[in-house]
Amino acid sequence: MSTAWTSRYALRTKTIKSSAIRELLKITQQPEVISFAGGLPAPDVFPTERFRDACHKVLEQNAKTALQYGATEGYEPLREMIARHTSRYGIKAEPENVLITSGSQQALDLIGKLLINPGDRVLVEAPTYLGALQAFNVYGADYVSVPSDEDGIRTELLEKPLRSGPKFMYVLPNFQNPGGTTLSESRRHELVLLADQFGIPIIEDDPYGQLRYEGEHLPPLVVLDRENLRRDNGYSIGNVIYLSTFSKTLAPGLRLGWIVAPPEVISKLVQLKQGADLHTSTFAQIVAYEVARDGFLDEHVKVIRRVYGERRDVMLQALKEFFPSEVTWTHPKGGLFLWVTLPKGMDCQKLFQIALKENVAFVPGESFYANDGEQGKLHMRLNFSYGQPDQIREGVRRLSIAVKRQMEELHLLPHMSTVS
Amino acid sequence: MSTAWTSRYALRTKTIKSSAIRELLKITQQPEVISFAGGLPAPDVFPTERFRDACHKVLEQNAKTALQYGATEGYEPLREMIARHTSRYGIKAEPENVLITSGSQQALDLIGKLLINPGDRVLVEAPTYLGALQAFNVYGADYVSVPSDEDGIRTELLEKPLRSGPKFMYVLPNFQNPGGTTLSESRRHELVLLADQFGIPIIEDDPYGQLRYEGEHLPPLVVLDRENLRRDNGYSIGNVIYLSTFSKTLAPGLRLGWIVAPPEVISKLVQLKQGADLHTSTFAQIVAYEVARDGFLDEHVKVIRRVYGERRDVMLQALKEFFPSEVTWTHPKGGLFLWVTLPKGMDCQKLFQIALKENVAFVPGESFYANDGEQGKLHMRLNFSYGQPDQIREGVRRLSIAVKRQMEELHLLPHMSTVS
Repeated sequence: MSTAWTSRYALRTKTIKSSAIRELLKITQQPEVISFAGGLPAPDVFPTERFRDACHKVLEQNAKTALQYGATEGYEPLREMIARHTSRYGIKAEPENVLITSGSQQALDLIGKLLINPGDRVLVEAPTYLGALQAFNVYGADYVSVPSDEDGIRTELLEKPLRSGPKFMYVLPNFQNPGGTTLSESRRHELVLLADQFGIPIIEDDPYGQLRYEGEHLPPLVVLDRENLRRDNGYSIGNVIYLSTFSKTLAPGLRLGWIVAPPEVISKLVQLKQGADLHTSTFAQIVAYEVARDGFLDEHVKVIRRVYGERRDVMLQALKEFFPSEVTWTHPKGGLFLWVTLPKGMDCQKLFQIALKENVAFVPGESFYANDGEQGKLHMRLNFSYGQPDQIREGVRRLSIAVKRQMEELHLLPHMSTVS
Repeated sequence: MSTAWTSRYALRTKTIKSSAIRELLKITQQPEVISFAGGLPAPDVFPTERFRDACHKVLEQNAKTALQYGATEGYEPLREMIARHTSRYGIKAEPENVLITSGSQQALDLIGKLLINPGDRVLVEAPTYLGALQAFNVYGADYVSVPSDEDGIRTELLEKPLRSGPKFMYVLPNFQNPGGTTLSESRRHELVLLADQFGIPIIEDDPYGQLRYEGEHLPPLVVLDRENLRRDNGYSIGNVIYLSTFSKTLAPGLRLGWIVAPPEVISKLVQLKQGADLHTSTFAQIVAYEVARDGFLDEHVKVIRRVYGERRDVMLQALKEFFPSEVTWTHPKGGLFLWVTLPKGMDCQKLFQIALKENVAFVPGESFYANDGEQGKLHMRLNFSYGQPDQIREGVRRLSIAVKRQMEELHLLPHMSTVS
């Protein structure tokens, strides 16, 4: 009797593909390649010594808790710390509003599991974070995409899509992945008003919020939501689920993210998390708590801001210096990425192949579109957090050669620059 | 407009309930209660110093890898070690057969996601591990339950259920949770032959396999499967997916489990894991690798066997000493649990309440049945790994008081013993 596994897979998994980016990363890991493809934090800013001290302390004083099973909700002191930190931004969170997840990717998976029936529509930005698409796809999501510009999702285009009854909206207001764009304050107000008007919940994904290199912190949607609805009984009936993570501020290798939501939503997510992985590593949680506590996290975030801010500047400067004027890019006020727009007619997949020959890599834009990947052909996502400044400059120089080569082939570059 | 979250939940989540056990554990955490309810390893056998040394070494020599994003498949040296260890039992596993998961609970979730369409039947033992039911329920599984006895699932009853076309069989052959029973060697042969005959895959869950306190190691189903099918091209077309974990041999707080499966299945599970949590904590994986390496794990397992074996003996002895002869229990050859059968007419839920007043706790049997929880009324699951020997003895004494009290109320105990 045949035991072919493929014939046994559930319908929901038939179309699931590996993340294009994670496959790309494998290609681009040769040491001679300067890669702007990953979304990796810089390892040189990992607070290694602090981790060493924290591990020592935890295993000296708290090993029996750290190595044992724990509560599905998360390590209580860590939940308290997150609630406290979150509250600084005007979100009145209590520990009962916080669920610790195995990275914010798990938060997306649990939210998909909780909210998406097959065929449900999810409203997303175009472009959007592809990890979210991957998490939602498996539950049979369809998508309504709304274009964004330098000021984030274009709220003037939201009414019709909202009228079509999506299950929820998924947005990254700060230094979006992949766009590097930030939702303006006026659009934030519009967004939450519209969401409230149409009764559509918002999933606010904020992995990079603390990594701002210029300008003022803008209020999270979850805060505006509360104000707009003039609720004074705390967070408990909110319309927004807020996500964040330690991956960009401490270390992604811990796999620690969290969900801030009304307690009724948290309690349902806790049930789903029990079935998904019982709980997130107690050891990772306690170590993270010991690393972050006593103000260390805040001080460390300042270091990251300085380092990444400088790298962003180097990349922006190099793009200006090396790239032809027909190419444009976003000016991220924070985060890890910027988004390049190529002249019409170009094809970033082919460009990727040319770039690889120049020993430089990026992520082609198609993967970031839920509906129409075609428009992604004109885009590249560039990461500026991982490389050293001189590598960033050299990588942009190499990339400019690839760009000019494709433009030349397509006769988009009337007066040839010096392509070697 | 109403923003009630409950109206938005996906169908699949409507009936999902919190694990009865995890809720119980909260009740039973008062210090005066001797709890046999949890499935917790004994914290006194955690190899804390080895962990401390491993953390120090990892953060000294390998911090940039340990704190960074990693491959979804898992940390390569750990996959190699697991493949090597697994191969000792006759399973020819290569690293490409191994996927590291966030505890074996995640393995169950990913398998449910991969294989179960709503309404698909899963063949399980009665009783079975409730974490598996929790993982599979969310994907809409129905169940066919096959009774088990001291020698494990009753293979003579398998043919009809197999004929009904379940999607797969889920079995725990070694020191089953909750039964404490072990599938006999002859039944192992029968099981894999039947599975092959009907083309039904087997999920072999083996969290406790190494924790054997008496008798000889029995061949895993995954090995017999290969032999029966006389395949000589390695593991790649096997009918069995094998699961195990470090939770019972190193520390559950790490949340590290693994799946051994044909590469085509692994590659699909990797795609699902990407969407679920990107990858398991690199830090936890590297630390576990450093703890386990150079033969430490094998030596440590010997310590655990000695400690838990002694505790099992203490519990068996105390049951014999204190419990009325109308009550019976299994004699586990390994693992963490034994399974008590009460006289007809008794009700373990009510008994649980009586027991709590005596400051002793257990898990009532109902939760472990996929179909007919009623039969669980006559059962209690007792854990013997967590408590100190004198606590175990005292706990069994207290429990015997509760048991006798209920028997007395029901006139099941003609000649009253000394119930205080």
